[in-house]
Amino acid sequence: MNIRTDLATEQGELKHLGEKDGFYETVTQGDIPVSRVRIVNENAAQLTGKPIGNYATIFFDGAFSDDALFDQAVERTAEVIREFLKGAQNVLAVGLGNAEMTADALGPKVIDRLVVSRHLKDKLPDLYRQLALGNLSALRPGVLGQTGIETAEMIRAAADTVSPDAILVFDALASRRAKRLCATVQISDTGIVPGSGVGNHRAAVNREYLGVPVISVGVPTVVDAATLAVDTLEKVRDRMDESERAMAKAWTEDEGDRLRHAMGDYENNLIVTPQDIDALIDRTAKLLATAANQAIHRNVDREQMDLLCRV
Amino acid sequence: MNIRTDLATEQGELKHLGEKDGFYETVTQGDIPVSRVRIVNENAAQLTGKPIGNYATIFFDGAFSDDALFDQAVERTAEVIREFLKGAQNVLAVGLGNAEMTADALGPKVIDRLVVSRHLKDKLPDLYRQLALGNLSALRPGVLGQTGIETAEMIRAAADTVSPDAILVFDALASRRAKRLCATVQISDTGIVPGSGVGNHRAAVNREYLGVPVISVGVPTVVDAATLAVDTLEKVRDRMDESERAMAKAWTEDEGDRLRHAMGDYENNLIVTPQDIDALIDRTAKLLATAANQAIHRNVDREQMDLLCRV
Amino acid sequence: MNIRTDLATEQGELKHLGEKDGFYETVTQGDIPVSRVRIVNENAAQLTGKPIGNYATIFFDGAFSDDALFDQAVERTAEVIREFLKGAQNVLAVGLGNAEMTADALGPKVIDRLVVSRHLKDKLPDLYRQLALGNLSALRPGVLGQTGIETAEMIRAAADTVSPDAILVFDALASRRAKRLCATVQISDTGIVPGSGVGNHRAAVNREYLGVPVISVGVPTVVDAATLAVDTLEKVRDRMDESERAMAKAWTEDEGDRLRHAMGDYENNLIVTPQDIDALIDRTAKLLATAANQAIHRNVDREQMDLLCRV
Amino acid sequence: MNIRTDLATEQGELKHLGEKDGFYETVTQGDIPVSRVRIVNENAAQLTGKPIGNYATIFFDGAFSDDALFDQAVERTAEVIREFLKGAQNVLAVGLGNAEMTADALGPKVIDRLVVSRHLKDKLPDLYRQLALGNLSALRPGVLGQTGIETAEMIRAAADTVSPDAILVFDALASRRAKRLCATVQISDTGIVPGSGVGNHRAAVNREYLGVPVISVGVPTVVDAATLAVDTLEKVRDRMDESERAMAKAWTEDEGDRLRHAMGDYENNLIVTPQDIDALIDRTAKLLATAANQAIHRNVDREQMDLLCRV
Repeated sequence: MNIRTDLATEQGELKHLGEKDGFYETVTQGDIPVSRVRIVNENAAQLTGKPIGNYATIFFDGAFSDDALFDQAVERTAEVIREFLKGAQNVLAVGLGNAEMTADALGPKVIDRLVVSRHLKDKLPDLYRQLALGNLSALRPGVLGQTGIETAEMIRAAADTVSPDAILVFDALASRRAKRLCATVQISDTGIVPGSGVGNHRAAVNREYLGVPVISVGVPTVVDAATLAVDTLEKVRDRMDESERAMAKAWTEDEGDRLRHAMGDYENNLIVTPQDIDALIDRTAKLLATAANQAIHRNVDREQMDLLCRV
Repeated sequence: MNIRTDLATEQGELKHLGEKDGFYETVTQGDIPVSRVRIVNENAAQLTGKPIGNYATIFFDGAFSDDALFDQAVERTAEVIREFLKGAQNVLAVGLGNAEMTADALGPKVIDRLVVSRHLKDKLPDLYRQLALGNLSALRPGVLGQTGIETAEMIRAAADTVSPDAILVFDALASRRAKRLCATVQISDTGIVPGSGVGNHRAAVNREYLGVPVISVGVPTVVDAATLAVDTLEKVRDRMDESERAMAKAWTEDEGDRLRHAMGDYENNLIVTPQDIDALIDRTAKLLATAANQAIHRNVDREQMDLLCRV
Repeated sequence: MNIRTDLATEQGELKHLGEKDGFYETVTQGDIPVSRVRIVNENAAQLTGKPIGNYATIFFDGAFSDDALFDQAVERTAEVIREFLKGAQNVLAVGLGNAEMTADALGPKVIDRLVVSRHLKDKLPDLYRQLALGNLSALRPGVLGQTGIETAEMIRAAADTVSPDAILVFDALASRRAKRLCATVQISDTGIVPGSGVGNHRAAVNREYLGVPVISVGVPTVVDAATLAVDTLEKVRDRMDESERAMAKAWTEDEGDRLRHAMGDYENNLIVTPQDIDALIDRTAKLLATAANQAIHRNVDREQMDLLCRV
Repeated sequence: MNIRTDLATEQGELKHLGEKDGFYETVTQGDIPVSRVRIVNENAAQLTGKPIGNYATIFFDGAFSDDALFDQAVERTAEVIREFLKGAQNVLAVGLGNAEMTADALGPKVIDRLVVSRHLKDKLPDLYRQLALGNLSALRPGVLGQTGIETAEMIRAAADTVSPDAILVFDALASRRAKRLCATVQISDTGIVPGSGVGNHRAAVNREYLGVPVISVGVPTVVDAATLAVDTLEKVRDRMDESERAMAKAWTEDEGDRLRHAMGDYENNLIVTPQDIDALIDRTAKLLATAANQAIHRNVDREQMDLLCRV
């Protein structure tokens, strides 16, 4: 009820998944935990509310106050992106979201920091070969209210021109827990589920619509205010004794519609963010773009990346 | 408990104020309600948690989708500012807050739109006289973390130079109710109470410290996440029947520390804003600046204002 | 030699055009002069260096310090855009240029202020019909170095999706005369000539490539530094007496390569702009967007436009 | 005539200075040349048009496409700043210029990247002592048209509050040569000479007015258009043969007023910048801020700096 999350790892029902439905595991490499979820059939999809496919979640909490941890987070993210790209040579990167709205601007800000190279093949062929650059192009499709064109339509149009092997989509997500905001990245091969995220970019951006694999890279930047309200009630309940809990159960679950009414104002209109969201978005964009650059241009070091950005 | 608000009209205890302690009234002129609160003595101040002084609150809900209403809101705000300025001829405007944080940038954004005129007295004396301009100067003091200088110190330094009759301070406030965000402006003569607002500009900015009247013009731009959580519980309680309520009372009031623990994460770190806060801040800044320009430069129409901005 | 201009009216050879080659006339309506040039055949095109087609130039010098003149400039520009659109119902607007470079950001900034409506047909059909909105969609294609995709390719991809009757392209141009910067708008049906403008968006954006009429709306925002240098020499020569002039002719024309060497540094690297270019770009974008909105949504007044921007 | 430069090294008359008047020397350390000029008496000051004092100029051409060179440039700049500060413990940094004008925004942008520490002495005393931080505070005074307060007045007000040992002023300068734009930094102890720079911040910012040493750190970001025009003529003359030169001398020197008339339009209104000035300003601000941070907080490495920026 009113719970809005784009993170597979936040689906409470995951623990009910049997081995034949999917699996859930967390591996920690260095100081960075990576969890993996696989939804294998429709049954599991309905149970969890997430489409069939693979999900990896990287937890980079603390990376913005520790340079070594930041580097590890970039490394892990680059590895997972590379794994999901499965050797795709020609990649179209897409930054979803509204650049004019702080918490939704993550996607466009990642695009601003990518080393696009598709045009260098012809323009600087020697450099292109010498550095063994990947073939990367990029799109900031804007949002429907700015363009009058569905995001998915716009991506398909660009894909028709570029003919990519894979599409790599960056987006701001909604999370259930405030502590995951700008501290977690989810990479999946299921595309972007309509109705998610901060803004209103609703059309399906997935393999079915676009004809090539769609790898999405999403970071939660907001908690829905209604979700926060519901979680508050649950936290209070967790601290109750037995008899209180019985009482509370009555109205938090069975009479959920009272809460739904009470929360009415908040739906779709109010968001919860860290106070320093502006700075966090910038740092997260830097982390994702560095990782994507490394995943795609494998033989190029960071200094060369910096210079290529200025070609 | 955990309730954080900068609005005098949100102090529930106002209704307990007797006639000798202060008064509370709401007058609606056109479509714009204006409420006034007066805290007359220490007793009333302690009861309400607001300093002794005068507060006017203008409710401009809907002004951003109705140009006529916007004009009325500007008019009312200009009148109230003029009333609080009590004929001050030489005014120093100050925009508090961090221009780099969306929800805290209101103050600096108002300053950007003011028609400053102090320097025109010498530079364009004929124009100055002819338009009967007020004497307006402006300061964006930044925040402590950017400057290493307390906001109040910085304002005092500027005031020593400018010798104003009054200081007009613009700031982003915290509200208790989401529906008041960017829909309400509070004007008061008590200065800015330390610890309020979005950012961390803590030092007292008031007449006592600065030596001249300080008129503050504040608009709520965030709700504290902990406040939202507490209000959620109250909303649920309002819909309970008698016996449920008795139960709930137990843990929402008597055992408030359980909630306080549960809410611990949120304190000072999480804020609740409308999704389109970026656009709302811009429109609110325009409303306040237009009103302040009208209040100070009485004989200048809006078109002339526009041109003066470009001198 | 080294003269770089995108304005048809700046082609000195226009005066040599006979009646059968084209015509040149200037009509002043109110306080706003509008000049028209028509290049009718290849002979005229070679003589002037401008493609065959129609050009209208509107001179709005002074519009940023006189609101009435601004309104006239908007009116004239809207009329000419409407005339060039020839009744097109479905229009795709495109903002060329690099939003990260002040003098090249005009196109993207116009797009930000357009009332796009294509999606409202389905989303708000009653409003759409009631206001008799035109069908407007919009694209900010970015520049090659940011996307790896040629601007013209990107526009073609969007046009394949939107199937417009006409494409309306906004761009920053180079002028020969500093006094025309942000003071002149040229509207033409010849598309954007490769190699023009501030940035490096080189591919042809015209009817031939895109399959539908392309109406370009361009405002000069820079003078090429080499052009300024050459013009300086000419100005000096204009003030010489006969014998001096003979001398000067020797090195400014016959020995032009000396100058070319001397100017070498400046080519393509240095631009000349007014000091307050940042503010001028914003005001020009507002002028063009208001005019385009009026041209396309004929029955909608400016207040309604403002509200539609916020749907 | 019409030559406008803020760089001491661009004063052609330097070569005429005898040993008793001052000295001029260039030392290259690593790949970074540093030149030093000393103007010792009024005679030298009148000859060169620069006030009595010390000037160091660091040439960092190429530092933005070579990370090692960038690091050297930071190192040299930090050393020279430290040398000019002469052991000052308490430093007030000031960023002159208009943050809303691209080419004038250098000063404010440097301030945004400084590690201010004055407030940490009380707030985090252990960290302050442990890192042996310098005492740095910062001010962005804005420009007269935005504040109505003279820049120099505003700085004096802040200095009265902070009581610094020295004031470190960052500013955008005008250069004579386009190749020096964002490629040279001049550090001097003479303060900022009125009438210089891009914007209109005219009042003297120097030791005489402020009572403590004023160290200015300036980078040329524009060439005045009139200066470019004059230099063009000189470049052409340099390539002339003897008889042509005699002729040219007549009108470029003796009849300079013809040129002055011809150039009239350009004075104070037109500026020449590199096409990618937006990006260059950002990189230059990073270079200067990193150097200043190193000069003032001697025992803190760059990673610690980064973290301190986020305290």
